[in-house]
Amino acid sequence: MIVEHIAVGDEILLGNIVNTNGSYLAEQFAKLGFESFFQSVVGDNEENIDFLLDFASKRSDIVVITGGMGPTKDDITKECLSRYLNIPLVEDEIAKNKLVSLFKARGKEITENSFKQAKVLKGSKVLYNDFGHSCGEIAETDECKYILLPGQPNELKPMFRECVVPYLKAVSDSTIVTKTVKISGITEAELEDKVKDIVNKYSNPKVTMHAKVGEVHIHVVAKSSDEKECEKLIKPVVKELKTAVGEYIFTTNDDVTLEESLAQILLANKLTITTAESCTGGIIASRLINVPGASELIKASYVTYSDKAKHKLLGVKNSTLQKYTAVSEEVCREMAQAEDMVMKADVVISVTGLAGPDGGTEEKPVGLVYIGINVKGNVSVYEYRFKGDRQKIRDCAATAALSLARINILKFIGKTEFGIKPV
Amino acid sequence: MIVEHIAVGDEILLGNIVNTNGSYLAEQFAKLGFESFFQSVVGDNEENIDFLLDFASKRSDIVVITGGMGPTKDDITKECLSRYLNIPLVEDEIAKNKLVSLFKARGKEITENSFKQAKVLKGSKVLYNDFGHSCGEIAETDECKYILLPGQPNELKPMFRECVVPYLKAVSDSTIVTKTVKISGITEAELEDKVKDIVNKYSNPKVTMHAKVGEVHIHVVAKSSDEKECEKLIKPVVKELKTAVGEYIFTTNDDVTLEESLAQILLANKLTITTAESCTGGIIASRLINVPGASELIKASYVTYSDKAKHKLLGVKNSTLQKYTAVSEEVCREMAQAEDMVMKADVVISVTGLAGPDGGTEEKPVGLVYIGINVKGNVSVYEYRFKGDRQKIRDCAATAALSLARINILKFIGKTEFGIKPV
Repeated sequence: MIVEHIAVGDEILLGNIVNTNGSYLAEQFAKLGFESFFQSVVGDNEENIDFLLDFASKRSDIVVITGGMGPTKDDITKECLSRYLNIPLVEDEIAKNKLVSLFKARGKEITENSFKQAKVLKGSKVLYNDFGHSCGEIAETDECKYILLPGQPNELKPMFRECVVPYLKAVSDSTIVTKTVKISGITEAELEDKVKDIVNKYSNPKVTMHAKVGEVHIHVVAKSSDEKECEKLIKPVVKELKTAVGEYIFTTNDDVTLEESLAQILLANKLTITTAESCTGGIIASRLINVPGASELIKASYVTYSDKAKHKLLGVKNSTLQKYTAVSEEVCREMAQAEDMVMKADVVISVTGLAGPDGGTEEKPVGLVYIGINVKGNVSVYEYRFKGDRQKIRDCAATAALSLARINILKFIGKTEFGIKPV
Repeated sequence: MIVEHIAVGDEILLGNIVNTNGSYLAEQFAKLGFESFFQSVVGDNEENIDFLLDFASKRSDIVVITGGMGPTKDDITKECLSRYLNIPLVEDEIAKNKLVSLFKARGKEITENSFKQAKVLKGSKVLYNDFGHSCGEIAETDECKYILLPGQPNELKPMFRECVVPYLKAVSDSTIVTKTVKISGITEAELEDKVKDIVNKYSNPKVTMHAKVGEVHIHVVAKSSDEKECEKLIKPVVKELKTAVGEYIFTTNDDVTLEESLAQILLANKLTITTAESCTGGIIASRLINVPGASELIKASYVTYSDKAKHKLLGVKNSTLQKYTAVSEEVCREMAQAEDMVMKADVVISVTGLAGPDGGTEEKPVGLVYIGINVKGNVSVYEYRFKGDRQKIRDCAATAALSLARINILKFIGKTEFGIKPV
C-alpha cells in the first residue's frame, strides 16, 4: 500500500521550523512496510491544499496530513478536507469534554474558537489527544483513507504510536514487523564489512543499514501473514547480527537511546559515572543528564578546556601537558585517572581533541580526538580521527565516548549483553 | 516571482535524514522576497521525479532541485532534467579539473563514475563546488529556471550563498533586502506587546516575528528599486526596534548566534566565563565551547547535579540546601557566588531547576528554573517557568542563561550595545 505525508503550515513553508514530522513519519511508514513516493509541504492556503489533496488522493492509498488544526482562522486543514470530500464537520462530544477539562486543568478560560478543535468529519474515527487541544481523525472513502494529526511533534508522536500504528497494521494487506538493531562504537565501513553477508543473504526479512551521527541502525523488516510469523523470521537474523557485531549493539529497542542504554547498565550494576571533557565541553554530561532519573548515576562532571583546568581540577601533570600537549593519549589517560575527582565516581569518561576549525597540524590534524574510559581503575584510551565541522566532530566524539564507556563497563563486569567477549 | 524546492533522495523519503535543506532554502527564499507555495520530497525514481518536474515547471518560475547528484547509478537528478528539457549532458572542463584536484588532494584514486559529477546540461551556468565533488548548475528555458545543487548541506549552503543568491537577486523583478533582528531574554508575549505597533505600522518594509527555542527573530523585509533604497527603508525600523527592545537584541547579523554574540562581548572586554550547571548539565558550556576560539574565554566549567557536588565543588552551604532545597533562588545564588571556582572567572552562570518528567510539586512544578549571573561579584538571580519536555526545558534554560549573561555584562560595563540602560 502507498502512503504519503502532507505537512500544512506557513511556518514550514517560510523555513521558520524544520519539518521533523516528515522524517519521523517517513521512518514509521518504512518500518510498517508501506511504500511512500512523495512528501509535500503546503502553506495555510485553501487552493494549494486542495491541489495537493487531489493529487495525493489519486496517487496514494493513505494520505497523512499534519498541521493546520489549531483554533485560529488560518487553520483550515479540516475545513479543506471537509469541502474536498463533501462531508460536513461535526463536534465530537468526547473531544469537546477533553478540551474543556484541559483548559480547566490549566486554569484558563476556554475561548469560543477553541471548540473548532473538537470538530471532525462526520462518520470519521476520532483520534483523541492527551497532550494538546486538537483531536485527530481518520476519514475513509472508497478511494483513499485520510489521517489527520496535529502538527506539534509532542502531540503527533503519541497519537501516531497509540492510534495510527494499530490502524495502519489493520488495513495493511500484509503484516510487517521491523526490529531496529542500534549499533555504535564501530565505523560504518568496518560494520559493513562484518555484516555485508547477512545484509545480502536475506530478502525476507529485508536487512538495511542506516547511518546516523556516530551510530548505525540496522532495520530487519519481515513480511508475513501474522506478527508471530514475522518475529520468527526476524529472530535468527538478529541472532546472526549479535554473533557478528554483538558488543557494538547497544539496543534492539527502538525507543532506547545510546545514553539510556548506558544509564541502564550503570543503574543495574550500581555504578556512578563522571566526565572530564575538553573539546566536547559538556556534551556527554548533558546527554547523560537528559536521561530521566540521571541523578542516581551522575553526581558531577568537569569541563576542563584549558591546560590549567586539566592540571588543577583533574591533576594532569604539567610535565605531561608540556611534553605531549593537551591533545594526546597521555593527557587523556591522566584525565581519566584523575585521583581527586570529587564524588569518586566508578566510571570516568575523558575526552581531549581538536575540533577546529583552526589549530590543526599535519601530525595532529583537526578531528583528532582521544577518548579515555576508566572503569574502577582500569583505563583504556582510544584514538579517533573524525571528519566534519566543529559541531560534528564534537558530536561524533561524544557518541563514541558513550559507546566506549558501555563496552568497557560490560568488559569489566565480565560480560557483554550477548555473551561475546569484546576484543 | 514564485520559487519551489524539490529534494531528491530515498534517504529523505525513508526518514533516514531530516530534510534540513528544506527549511534552510525556504528561509532564504522568504528573505529574498520570493513567494513559495510548495516543497516536495521525492525518491531516486525517474518516473516520480519527472512527475514533479512537470508540475513544478508549470506552477513556479524557479525550481530549485537538491540531491541525487552523486556518482552512483541511483543519482539521476541531472539525467532526469536533461531528458525532461531535451538538453544533452556535457562535461564541464573546469568542474572536471576541480574534481581531479580534489581526489588528488585527498590522496585517492579517481574512479570512472566520478566524472558524472562534472557533467551539466549543455548551455547551463555551472556552479562550482569548493567543498565536494558535484558541481551545481542553473538551466534556463523560456518558461522556467532550474537550479541544481548537491544535497550535502555543507556544500549546498556556500554554493547557495555565493552563486545562487546573486543570481536570484538579478532575476528578481524587484530588489529585496532582509535584516534579521535576533532577540532573546524576553518572552514572546512580552515582546509582541512591546513591538506590535512597529509590526503593524509598516507595510514596506514588512516586519514579521518568528519564534525559535528561547529566541525570536524579527525579519524586516524591504522591497524597492535598488539595495540602497531598501537599506534606507530598513534603517528607521531597526532603530525603532532598538528603542523598544534594544537590550534584548543580541545581533542584527544573520550569521551570528547568541553564544557568538556573548563570546564577542567577553573577548572585547577581556572577560572570562565559567558555568555551574545542574539541570542544564553542560549544555551552556558546550554551546560556548562550540564558538571557535572559545579557549580564550572559558577555561573550565562544572556540572554539579547532586547536592553533594553543589556543596563540595561550589561551596553551597549544606544549611541552604536543606532549608531551601536545590531548586531555589538561594541555592542558585550561592552557586553563582562559588568562592573557589578554579580559574577565577570574571563571569559565572549558574542554573538549577526541575526538568522533569518527575519530581514536580504544586509549589515547585516541572519547568521551574533559577538562573544566576555573577559579573565580578554582582549577582542577579532570575526565576523562569518553562514548558515542554525534559530536553526543551533544558534548552530553553540554556538559551535564557546565555541571554541573561549578555545583558548583565553589558549592564556591568555601563552600556548596552544600543545606549539603553537595562531595567
